[in-house]
Amino acid sequence: MEEIVQADFMVVKALENGVTIIGLTRGKETTVHHTEKLDEGEVWFCQFTEHVSAIKIRGKAEIFSRYGKVQSGK
Amino acid sequence: MEEIVQADFMVVKALENGVTIIGLTRGKETTVHHTEKLDEGEVWFCQFTEHVSAIKIRGKAEIFSRYGKVQSGK
Amino acid sequence: MEEIVQADFMVVKALENGVTIIGLTRGKETTVHHTEKLDEGEVWFCQFTEHVSAIKIRGKAEIFSRYGKVQSGK
Amino acid sequence: MEEIVQADFMVVKALENGVTIIGLTRGKETTVHHTEKLDEGEVWFCQFTEHVSAIKIRGKAEIFSRYGKVQSGK
Amino acid sequence: MEEIVQADFMVVKALENGVTIIGLTRGKETTVHHTEKLDEGEVWFCQFTEHVSAIKIRGKAEIFSRYGKVQSGK
Amino acid sequence: MEEIVQADFMVVKALENGVTIIGLTRGKETTVHHTEKLDEGEVWFCQFTEHVSAIKIRGKAEIFSRYGKVQSGK
Amino acid sequence: MEEIVQADFMVVKALENGVTIIGLTRGKETTVHHTEKLDEGEVWFCQFTEHVSAIKIRGKAEIFSRYGKVQSGK
Amino acid sequence: MEEIVQADFMVVKALENGVTIIGLTRGKETTVHHTEKLDEGEVWFCQFTEHVSAIKIRGKAEIFSRYGKVQSGK
Amino acid sequence: MEEIVQADFMVVKALENGVTIIGLTRGKETTVHHTEKLDEGEVWFCQFTEHVSAIKIRGKAEIFSRYGKVQSGK
Amino acid sequence: MEEIVQADFMVVKALENGVTIIGLTRGKETTVHHTEKLDEGEVWFCQFTEHVSAIKIRGKAEIFSRYGKVQSGK
Amino acid sequence: MEEIVQADFMVVKALENGVTIIGLTRGKETTVHHTEKLDEGEVWFCQFTEHVSAIKIRGKAEIFSRYGKVQSGK
Amino acid sequence: MEEIVQADFMVVKALENGVTIIGLTRGKETTVHHTEKLDEGEVWFCQFTEHVSAIKIRGKAEIFSRYGKVQSGK
Repeated sequence: MEEIVQADFMVVKALENGVTIIGLTRGKETTVHHTEKLDEGEVWFCQFTEHVSAIKIRGKAEIFSRYGKVQSGK
Repeated sequence: MEEIVQADFMVVKALENGVTIIGLTRGKETTVHHTEKLDEGEVWFCQFTEHVSAIKIRGKAEIFSRYGKVQSGK
Repeated sequence: MEEIVQADFMVVKALENGVTIIGLTRGKETTVHHTEKLDEGEVWFCQFTEHVSAIKIRGKAEIFSRYGKVQSGK
Repeated sequence: MEEIVQADFMVVKALENGVTIIGLTRGKETTVHHTEKLDEGEVWFCQFTEHVSAIKIRGKAEIFSRYGKVQSGK
Repeated sequence: MEEIVQADFMVVKALENGVTIIGLTRGKETTVHHTEKLDEGEVWFCQFTEHVSAIKIRGKAEIFSRYGKVQSGK
Repeated sequence: MEEIVQADFMVVKALENGVTIIGLTRGKETTVHHTEKLDEGEVWFCQFTEHVSAIKIRGKAEIFSRYGKVQSGK
Repeated sequence: MEEIVQADFMVVKALENGVTIIGLTRGKETTVHHTEKLDEGEVWFCQFTEHVSAIKIRGKAEIFSRYGKVQSGK
Repeated sequence: MEEIVQADFMVVKALENGVTIIGLTRGKETTVHHTEKLDEGEVWFCQFTEHVSAIKIRGKAEIFSRYGKVQSGK
Repeated sequence: MEEIVQADFMVVKALENGVTIIGLTRGKETTVHHTEKLDEGEVWFCQFTEHVSAIKIRGKAEIFSRYGKVQSGK
Repeated sequence: MEEIVQADFMVVKALENGVTIIGLTRGKETTVHHTEKLDEGEVWFCQFTEHVSAIKIRGKAEIFSRYGKVQSGK
Repeated sequence: MEEIVQADFMVVKALENGVTIIGLTRGKETTVHHTEKLDEGEVWFCQFTEHVSAIKIRGKAEIFSRYGKVQSGK
Repeated sequence: MEEIVQADFMVVKALENGVTIIGLTRGKETTVHHTEKLDEGEVWFCQFTEHVSAIKIRGKAEIFSRYGKVQSGK
């Protein structure tokens, strides 16, 4: 369990209500692991984990990671 | 237990009363692990742990991490 | 399972509806592992994993990785 | 026990009497592990440990960590 | 399987239809492992793997790696 | 015992008589491990150890660590 | 097999037809392991491997590695 | 015994006769391990060791460590 | 066999016909392991290996390594 | 024995005859391990070792280490 | 045998005929292990090895290593 | 034996005949291990080894190491 807690993480700041963050499963099947809803102004930190190797963000948000800042939403 | 104490951490400074920090569980289920309330001016340090791989901040706060400073709240 | 969660990842921001991200399998056979559709403005994070060693992006998108930003689409 | 002593630490300088530093427990339960009171001008160094993965500072203080300086208190 | 997912990767952006990416096998024999066709505007990420230690790109494309950008095609 | 001797350390230079340095215990109980008194001009080096994970400085002093210089005392 | 996929690699861009890349064997005997022909505009990525510790490039090409760019050919 | 010899060290240059360097013991008890007297102009190198985790310098001296230069003495 | 493929390598570009590269054996005896002839314009990559710890270049060539560029030949 | 040879070392250049370098023992007892006399212009390299964790230089000399240059002697 | 191939190496470019490179043995006895003669313009790469821990260069040559360039010869 | 070949080394360029390099033994006894004489213009590379942890240079020479250049001799 030790090294897992040093995995990459991202930071999502919701710029509107209803921003959705969907974690998808690592492994043979890629299915939805967890869905989180953020209201405007809420901030979310999450890591890649033993169970999640892909993450989708839907709605207007600022997203920060090792590669800088990206804005989601139209 | 050794390497876990070197996990990434974040710093949250509350800019109003009632800032809420919610730790969500690592692993197969993503449920609430711990909820902390901060009053204005309080500062909070927390790490990703064996039990927490996602964290949500609600309310007006300054948040510092490896990727710089983000402000939560509307 | 430990080190896998520190694998390289990429970030894809869809600039139109119907951006497709196709993960292809690592190992002796290179076949489709997972296909994801993004609508305009959605952002996608994914890692190389034990099961995926190649990824194809089709449609208009901004893609960020260790080597900077690339734009897909005509 | 070896690597634990290289964990991240923070430095707190109290700017008024009664600055409170609360260490919260790592693990399944997040409860108070230790409470320390600082008078004005006292300086406190503490690490994340096997037992503490979150720390709350209440009162007017300068706090130094890997992410720079933060001032607590209203 | 752990360290393999941290292998070097390259990014290929096709500038015309029919860009071909050929992975060749690691080991005693160097034979074709996989052939991928890209249409104009498609982007391809792939790693060196346990099975692939050489890759050939044919057709007009921009290619990004640890050593910067190279353009293939006449 | 090997790696412990590479733990973080701090340097304290007393700017008045009676500067007090209190080492507090690592582990389940946080109690006083050692108390040191410095006279004006004396310099003190100490590490985090297997036994000490928190340190309090009382009185006027310059304190140097990985995060730079802090002055204690009113 | 793990670490091998992180070996140094080079990139060869053929500037004329018939550029030849010859991999020579590691170990007690140094013999030809593999010969690859590139046409003008083709790009080739290859790693040092368990089987190849020397590589010869013949013909007009741009070659990129950890030590920068070299042009082969008269 | 191997890694111990790579522990942090400090350098003390005495600026007057009678500079005193006191090594204090690592472990459950913090007692005097060794006392060294330096005359003006003498230079002293010493490491943290398996036996010493705190060091006190008394008298006028220049002290060099990973955190730069500090002058002891009034 | 794993780490060997990450050994230092050099790049030799022949500036005339008949450039000779001689690999000499590691170990108790230092004898010729392999001799390679390069014609003008050919480029040669080779690593130090389990069998080769010294390399001699004779004739006019540009040689690139971790320490920069050297030109051989009179 | 392996890692020991990578321990920190210092360089001492004697600026007068009779510069004395005294190595003191690591471990429970701190006693003289070795005494070396340098004449003017002689240069001395020595490492911390399994047996030596403190070194005293007496007389006029330039001393180089990881922390820069110090001059001993009045 | 693995790590040995990553040892430090030096590069010697002979500026006259008869440059001599003498490898001396590691271990209890320091005797000549190998003597190499270089003619003007020849370039020599060699590593420290399990058998060689000291190297002497005699004659006019440019020598490159981790510490830059040195010219031998009167 | 592996890591030893990555030990620190120094480079000595003799500026007069009769420069002497004396290697002294690591371990409980510090005695002469090897004495080398250099003539003007000769260059000497040597490592700290399992057998040598201190080195003395006598006579006029330029000496290069991790800490830069020092000139020996009056």
